[in-house]
Amino acid sequence: MASNLLRHTVSLQHSLRVSARAHRHVSQTAAKALVESEFDGPLMRTEVPGPKSRELTKQLGQIQNVIAVNFFCNYEASRGNYLVDVDGNRMLDVYTQIASIPIGENASICILWRRYNHPALVKVMTDSHNLSAFINRPALGVLPPDNLPEKLNAGLLSVAPRGMSRVQTMACGSCSNENAYKAMFIWYRNQQRGHTDPSPEELKSSVINQSPGCPDLSILSFMGGFHGRTLGCLATTHTKAIQKVDVPSFDWPIAPFPKLQYPLEEFKRENAQEEARCLEQVEDLIEKWGKKSRPVAGIVIEPIQAEGGDNHASFDFYRKLREIARKHGCAFHVDEVQTGGGATGRFWAHEHWGLDDPADIVSFSKKMLTGGYYHKEDFLPDKPFRIFNTWLGDQTKNLFLTEVLKVIKRERLLEEVKRSGKVMLHGLYELQARYPHLLSKARGLGTFCAIDVRDETTRNNLIFKARNKGVVLGGCGERSIRFRPALVFKEHHAHLFLNIFNEALAEMK
Amino acid sequence: MASNLLRHTVSLQHSLRVSARAHRHVSQTAAKALVESEFDGPLMRTEVPGPKSRELTKQLGQIQNVIAVNFFCNYEASRGNYLVDVDGNRMLDVYTQIASIPIGENASICILWRRYNHPALVKVMTDSHNLSAFINRPALGVLPPDNLPEKLNAGLLSVAPRGMSRVQTMACGSCSNENAYKAMFIWYRNQQRGHTDPSPEELKSSVINQSPGCPDLSILSFMGGFHGRTLGCLATTHTKAIQKVDVPSFDWPIAPFPKLQYPLEEFKRENAQEEARCLEQVEDLIEKWGKKSRPVAGIVIEPIQAEGGDNHASFDFYRKLREIARKHGCAFHVDEVQTGGGATGRFWAHEHWGLDDPADIVSFSKKMLTGGYYHKEDFLPDKPFRIFNTWLGDQTKNLFLTEVLKVIKRERLLEEVKRSGKVMLHGLYELQARYPHLLSKARGLGTFCAIDVRDETTRNNLIFKARNKGVVLGGCGERSIRFRPALVFKEHHAHLFLNIFNEALAEMK
Repeated sequence: MASNLLRHTVSLQHSLRVSARAHRHVSQTAAKALVESEFDGPLMRTEVPGPKSRELTKQLGQIQNVIAVNFFCNYEASRGNYLVDVDGNRMLDVYTQIASIPIGENASICILWRRYNHPALVKVMTDSHNLSAFINRPALGVLPPDNLPEKLNAGLLSVAPRGMSRVQTMACGSCSNENAYKAMFIWYRNQQRGHTDPSPEELKSSVINQSPGCPDLSILSFMGGFHGRTLGCLATTHTKAIQKVDVPSFDWPIAPFPKLQYPLEEFKRENAQEEARCLEQVEDLIEKWGKKSRPVAGIVIEPIQAEGGDNHASFDFYRKLREIARKHGCAFHVDEVQTGGGATGRFWAHEHWGLDDPADIVSFSKKMLTGGYYHKEDFLPDKPFRIFNTWLGDQTKNLFLTEVLKVIKRERLLEEVKRSGKVMLHGLYELQARYPHLLSKARGLGTFCAIDVRDETTRNNLIFKARNKGVVLGGCGERSIRFRPALVFKEHHAHLFLNIFNEALAEMK
Repeated sequence: MASNLLRHTVSLQHSLRVSARAHRHVSQTAAKALVESEFDGPLMRTEVPGPKSRELTKQLGQIQNVIAVNFFCNYEASRGNYLVDVDGNRMLDVYTQIASIPIGENASICILWRRYNHPALVKVMTDSHNLSAFINRPALGVLPPDNLPEKLNAGLLSVAPRGMSRVQTMACGSCSNENAYKAMFIWYRNQQRGHTDPSPEELKSSVINQSPGCPDLSILSFMGGFHGRTLGCLATTHTKAIQKVDVPSFDWPIAPFPKLQYPLEEFKRENAQEEARCLEQVEDLIEKWGKKSRPVAGIVIEPIQAEGGDNHASFDFYRKLREIARKHGCAFHVDEVQTGGGATGRFWAHEHWGLDDPADIVSFSKKMLTGGYYHKEDFLPDKPFRIFNTWLGDQTKNLFLTEVLKVIKRERLLEEVKRSGKVMLHGLYELQARYPHLLSKARGLGTFCAIDVRDETTRNNLIFKARNKGVVLGGCGERSIRFRPALVFKEHHAHLFLNIFNEALAEMK
């Protein structure tokens, strides 16, 4: 059944000329060669969630809403690309905690560290120098630890997007975007004033939420965009209604995001037309909101709309959008919370655009372990306490990130991503050719891949079915599945995934 | 000079009948008895910030705005109530990272743990069971770790405010309040609708920020209140203009917070009048905003306005405010981000009010190590993804908090706080009697104390002077100093602080 599924792939082709049932055995050798003591494949003991997960869900249900809980995990037993649940089911993880695990679970980290710099990891965890930071978070903005500049330079700034030497850490993605918006508002007003000192009237009125101190500025966002769930972010998030309903919002402009046909290279002309239509709308909205005295201070966009359904636009679209922002004096904020950290085959997805000056602000979180944003010099407030909070992130996350980045570089994991991403995408093309009644629109960059399923119910059933066969997947948009493996996901993992996914599809009606 | 300063105190009175200069030597024995191997007292080697701090500030200035940085710390060398900077200056810490250190710095923690449960701490840090959680944060809302219910029960829920068996963790104080506001909006709309299912029209309009899906609801807050700096929180924050200026806001009602005379017990009649005036305004505002179709879904208030200047109101004021909220169908949200965790002598400051039903929502962060909020059953959304984000806090903070709470209970630290709080407040009364041209309005609950200084410049100079004598302090409001020691701050630390503060005051002009 799987014999010709992966015709385009090379490396493990011969070993996969076997029935899908046998794949676990076959991939064993390759797995061992690539990631020492990672598991050979999935191993399922119960339906998921199993009895222990269900019992724990009942317990947690006494404390919290648990409708979104998939199952409970045994993280101690999990390794590399495999997530083990509390019922002993071992699953290939192609979702990675909503795209937030950079280099695999638990033991895989230990192995990688042992290979290169295991003492460094142990030191991070147990050094009395760091101990206090774990328990008592320093207030980084007023009483920073001695190693803060060193760790920022060795960590976050070592992978800073081109032209950005400034970084502000935050605790999570939402706080990162909220503060990035504030930085854009401050920048915009400083430009309007021609200097950085607010007037006494502005200062006074701001305290009571009134203009001119609290001006009617706006952020332009895109339909299908997702930038977080706090009130400022939520006003730029336009994915699922249930995330927004009942919460007050701002009257900010929302542009259409191009609805492209896939594969992109086969529909260049049609897609270019659609993108031109959207870009025209962007300019119209900027002018319209300017006229109604809610000028657009900044534009925020993801390099690939993730939560909204893995919607791609061409690199040319982004280049032109960046130009429009510049032309109209709007800041340009690229939200790389989900795309950043290597999964697209480059460290930052916007690096694919090939621009010298791609953004004013780039926000991140998830795989970066800490939230935050890079920014240009002009977006550094000249006064204290404008961009501020008690913790301003968590120094322990900076310490770990510094080590994680070393592993990514030494293991050349971005090369790995490119290789396994190719296997993934070609495999998805084959599967959609084989199951055209079920699948469409295979798309991806690196391992950041997705595919559409016939309808929402079928999508959800397919995810459940795959899970019971030992693959953890997540949905996005109305009827898409997004594939979000860790950076240690190798070609043989991609083959393994495709075989199991094929099995699940074959059983769908 | 200090001989009669601390007349009201008992325990260490005789040993302090000495000159202020000698206090470091005198307090030595008591210090050793109470906290093993804590330092004997401050030890200053340079002005603060010293040359190493200045050099590091220059380095960090290449990356971030550093105007708010006080000095760089050597957290490895810090212990208990003493913060050591990179220049080797050892200072008594009466600010604790903006009130966010529960049981003292570094070595003090190790000592406390060694005494009771040192293996537990070591296990938290090094157990392979937890290792993954430090590096790869589980997405607690979808793939929780097996020990989540256990740790929430043993930690956060073991200190839950009366009547609250539900808790939602978040990464920081701002995210906690943002999500608490969302929970109140959802609750309010469910009540208006009479059921929990939004209409198709509400769902559709919400995605594009429009009513009825995004309704014009409001949160009533108080002048001088501080609830965070993200856009929703910021609309309820009314302290310093520089925190708000240039950022768009919501048209939400702002009530006056009582401006009381201190000591409260000496001005009962005047203060009751002032509080009645404010409560009347609250009711007027609720009605006014109701009429302009921006109904008040919730009221948010701190038990003591901290950042706004340590403004107190009587317990009676809060009891009446809670009644007003109930009468008008508004949710009542008590923000304990700064007051929570024991510093007022009770675990939650609102427990002083003596109410059976003090709040619908209680938010926390800082000393609790994790952000989050407790809430009543009715504020649990019945659908997934309404209160949600990738991480929903950080399980490692739950692990540490569970251990910290054990220490607080076993060491009876709340009793300690009551004792040292008495010494603090009586000492401050004495000091303001001695320096009436400089100090006024000494006030406090537990060690959560404050005093006003003549003017802003004098306040800032006093803080610098005290720092160079070995005491770290922080300001709040326009001209107040807030005292925020850790829970391991004992009576002898209070004496020590008062002596040094007295020295600094004596040198002021």
